[in-house]
Amino acid sequence: MHRVALCQINVTVGDLPGNRARIARAAQEAADRGADLAVFPELAACGYPPEDLLLKPGFVDACGETVLDPPMDLPLAAVVGLPLRDAAGGALCNGAAVLAGAQVAARYRKVLLPNYGVFDEQRYFAAGDRGLVLDTGAARLGIAICEDVWALSGPVREEAAAGASTILCLSASPFHREKQAQREEVFARLCRAYGVTLLWCNLVGGQDELVFDGGSLAMDPGGRVLARAPSFEEALLCVDVPAKEAPETPSPSSEPQREVDVVRLPLAAVHREPLRAQVRDAPEELDAVYACLVLGVRDYVRKNEFADVVVGLSGGIDSALTAVVAVDALGAEHVRGVLLPSRYTSDRSLADTTALAQALEVRLVRISIEEAFESFLHALAPVFEDREPDETEENLQARIRAVYLMALSNKFRWLVLNTSNKSEAAVGYGTIYGDMIGAYGVLKDVFKTTVYALARLVNEHSGRERIPAAILERAPTAELKPGQRDQDALPAYEKLDPVLEAYIERDMSAREMIEAGFDAEVVRTAVRLTDRAEWKRRQSVPGVRVTPKAFGKDRRLPITNRYEG
Amino acid sequence: MHRVALCQINVTVGDLPGNRARIARAAQEAADRGADLAVFPELAACGYPPEDLLLKPGFVDACGETVLDPPMDLPLAAVVGLPLRDAAGGALCNGAAVLAGAQVAARYRKVLLPNYGVFDEQRYFAAGDRGLVLDTGAARLGIAICEDVWALSGPVREEAAAGASTILCLSASPFHREKQAQREEVFARLCRAYGVTLLWCNLVGGQDELVFDGGSLAMDPGGRVLARAPSFEEALLCVDVPAKEAPETPSPSSEPQREVDVVRLPLAAVHREPLRAQVRDAPEELDAVYACLVLGVRDYVRKNEFADVVVGLSGGIDSALTAVVAVDALGAEHVRGVLLPSRYTSDRSLADTTALAQALEVRLVRISIEEAFESFLHALAPVFEDREPDETEENLQARIRAVYLMALSNKFRWLVLNTSNKSEAAVGYGTIYGDMIGAYGVLKDVFKTTVYALARLVNEHSGRERIPAAILERAPTAELKPGQRDQDALPAYEKLDPVLEAYIERDMSAREMIEAGFDAEVVRTAVRLTDRAEWKRRQSVPGVRVTPKAFGKDRRLPITNRYEG
Repeated sequence: MHRVALCQINVTVGDLPGNRARIARAAQEAADRGADLAVFPELAACGYPPEDLLLKPGFVDACGETVLDPPMDLPLAAVVGLPLRDAAGGALCNGAAVLAGAQVAARYRKVLLPNYGVFDEQRYFAAGDRGLVLDTGAARLGIAICEDVWALSGPVREEAAAGASTILCLSASPFHREKQAQREEVFARLCRAYGVTLLWCNLVGGQDELVFDGGSLAMDPGGRVLARAPSFEEALLCVDVPAKEAPETPSPSSEPQREVDVVRLPLAAVHREPLRAQVRDAPEELDAVYACLVLGVRDYVRKNEFADVVVGLSGGIDSALTAVVAVDALGAEHVRGVLLPSRYTSDRSLADTTALAQALEVRLVRISIEEAFESFLHALAPVFEDREPDETEENLQARIRAVYLMALSNKFRWLVLNTSNKSEAAVGYGTIYGDMIGAYGVLKDVFKTTVYALARLVNEHSGRERIPAAILERAPTAELKPGQRDQDALPAYEKLDPVLEAYIERDMSAREMIEAGFDAEVVRTAVRLTDRAEWKRRQSVPGVRVTPKAFGKDRRLPITNRYEG
Repeated sequence: MHRVALCQINVTVGDLPGNRARIARAAQEAADRGADLAVFPELAACGYPPEDLLLKPGFVDACGETVLDPPMDLPLAAVVGLPLRDAAGGALCNGAAVLAGAQVAARYRKVLLPNYGVFDEQRYFAAGDRGLVLDTGAARLGIAICEDVWALSGPVREEAAAGASTILCLSASPFHREKQAQREEVFARLCRAYGVTLLWCNLVGGQDELVFDGGSLAMDPGGRVLARAPSFEEALLCVDVPAKEAPETPSPSSEPQREVDVVRLPLAAVHREPLRAQVRDAPEELDAVYACLVLGVRDYVRKNEFADVVVGLSGGIDSALTAVVAVDALGAEHVRGVLLPSRYTSDRSLADTTALAQALEVRLVRISIEEAFESFLHALAPVFEDREPDETEENLQARIRAVYLMALSNKFRWLVLNTSNKSEAAVGYGTIYGDMIGAYGVLKDVFKTTVYALARLVNEHSGRERIPAAILERAPTAELKPGQRDQDALPAYEKLDPVLEAYIERDMSAREMIEAGFDAEVVRTAVRLTDRAEWKRRQSVPGVRVTPKAFGKDRRLPITNRYEG
């Protein structure tokens, strides 16, 4: 049999020397653990997604040079993802190099290129047109990259027909809610259709808005998970591939349409004690969302070479959860809370914020915004004449707070974490250049009702009130005028969030939502507000994606747009 | 002969009833002017680009219903661009419907789908696989959509082989510097290769960052421009197509690979006095850039249903040019200037701003930022302790100005125009949430050296100092600390801009630029600063695109990115 190590590593986009070193270290660990072959994630050499770096010829050349010129001399054979030119040296492909004994034994080029959702691969890559099977002497191993295993029309069809009983798949598949279950369903269909074992190696780590969750796995031809790596952390999952394994299934139903390169890759078929399978349970959905937020924040901060963050704490649930995530991502000593009270800030907000900071052991800075607020009102009075106060004065307070947060950020190099949630971002319930500021949006893709659920989860798991119960129990308020409550301006979040989910994540029309039984008034309000807030979102912070469709490059709507619903 | 009207109209994304009405009006005008056939721009029914509206099934259905259900009853035959399902009713295509006598005479689906630069068509559309030729009895007219005529491998090849001597092309081709010359070169190659006359109808109008410049034209098989519509305005260009025209060129060199639908579209071949060709000169490059800025601003403001704008005037060239563009776009009565002086604002800045406002007949609001600045410094002093002043205090002033501009915007519904130029956006020489704020960036894609050139052009064309000479002659300064000049922090713009152009618009590497003779120190500074400012640009305003590669969806770089140069 062969022992294959799925090297679920956390690389950084553009850090070619760093990624190379990480690949070398993982390969050494794989060899130390008795593996014969190491599999790395998609585009491990350069990180995923490199976006328009791929349009720089110098970058593409540098990726190739880092891994192939000369070929990395690893202690075992390895399949490494990197950008590769086509066979003629022309068009760029999303590739994999098979390295063995400081030689390039074979090259593979991704056949199916996703160009939907957050993916733009057809912007960069030409599609490969052929499969690759490695003949080790003892087994036939097909190669695939990510999207290639998501459709039955991919190269696995031809590779299985060419005798591959095991497929090695290099992947960079980002997390969203329910993604792992969705993956395993799709993979099971593939394994059963072609009678193959799938060894799927996924990237792990945060990259701007995306978090790759790992969860690499081995699945047998019956669609059963044989082994699964942990999610949201680096791991090296070793899996045994029996020698001389024969395909369980006859040739596929449809006629093979692509050619397959069959390349000899001699690997000793070692007789050794079979591994006990490691099968880590996939995390529960809410746990996974929380872990995703933590990893997203940690990697954004650290990969951008910051150490410390600052969170504006209001006494509300959003800033409280943001602070908890930050503490779990970076450690309490790297998190500062800032309390910026005004004349409208209640004693309760002050007390709850103090309690929160104490519970989290986070240092708290307190600066009143009153003096600045007064000075703006005074200077504006002659221009505003005797106009009534309106949202202008509310936004003014939010923007003064932003000025303070940014001043602290500039002076102390604390990165500002934004605390807005997805419900607010959807309906535009936030002040641009005010509470919408920050370097990174922790809750950007988390609906308000999920914010509550995550906060309860945090307290349950810790067995204490990391988030004071008073914060959890309180009705949401922006505290920008007397007696203000979110619910006076918006439908109740319990009613609003399901409508937003249907509208944003499932592209349902207003008519369809009303027909599906949602409250017509809530639907009309949600659609109108969401459509009108596109201009604000265009300038909003990047933030962790946790749902099937986040604001950002996942959802690209025009600002100038008169279509309703 | 037939008389074809190229209806260069300005539609609005998502405004289906409005666009329908505009199509009907243009068709009536075309009929009144004796045309037999009207050609409209690409996706005229819904506007271009509709982006992810196309992922909403309700939107696609509504587009179809607006034009086809029942088919629009126009006073002449017409070719109208709209999203169309494929023949099986499944995948979505970028289509054209041929309407005649309230019937759909034929459907065409775009074959070549651009997926580079600002285009994401493969995200939305499946490619058509066949040409369409309309046989009028007197002539054979091939149909194509935009990208289809940019490559010799497009459907014109097969349509010409099927006897089409004239190609009707529906287009939505956005402006950038030198675009019209580039187009005409590409089209001439096509016309000569296949011996066809090209009637090219382009969209006109601003849509978020893009400005479609019109310039619709007729080109003969020799590549000569027979007629050309004006740029940057609506127009109806009538062109005569001779009856029984025979292809001048033999069948194309390569074997036709696509099928072609040949559909009868009976049109009377009227004998009438031939038109005198209208050949409007394409505008000079700088004139075109200026016209693009004006149209971009006008359409952004009006299509988003604003009437008035506000510009922060500093006494510098950027805000002066921004104000001039705004006045030319909207009229002086719709433009407010705001002067926000601090302790560092020179008397010269005050005088020059006053002179500018007078020259432009723009009302000027003046508010000192000193009181607010003092109040922030006072409140921050205990937290900052005895740290030295640094960029924090400079940013503070810029952010206080932003708070004032936004307060005026909120109170009076004046849309804030941003005044930052492309050189500053590139190197990050601007304050996020400070001078980087606004609804729309007039100079976002204009390098500083081009700002000067445009300002001189404005004065030349008007024959007076709309922009006071004192502003043109002054060394750039942010006036955020005593004696500050841009040139103390940055290379001279005359040296910097060409390097930025090579790096940003041509993706040259640092090494390549140095080898090409650019100053190595300037190159290293420009690359380092540009790479590090990606996080700021991600939250920057949308703005008019005037170059081959603007910041925005044209250039999609990761924030988290360790690759250098």
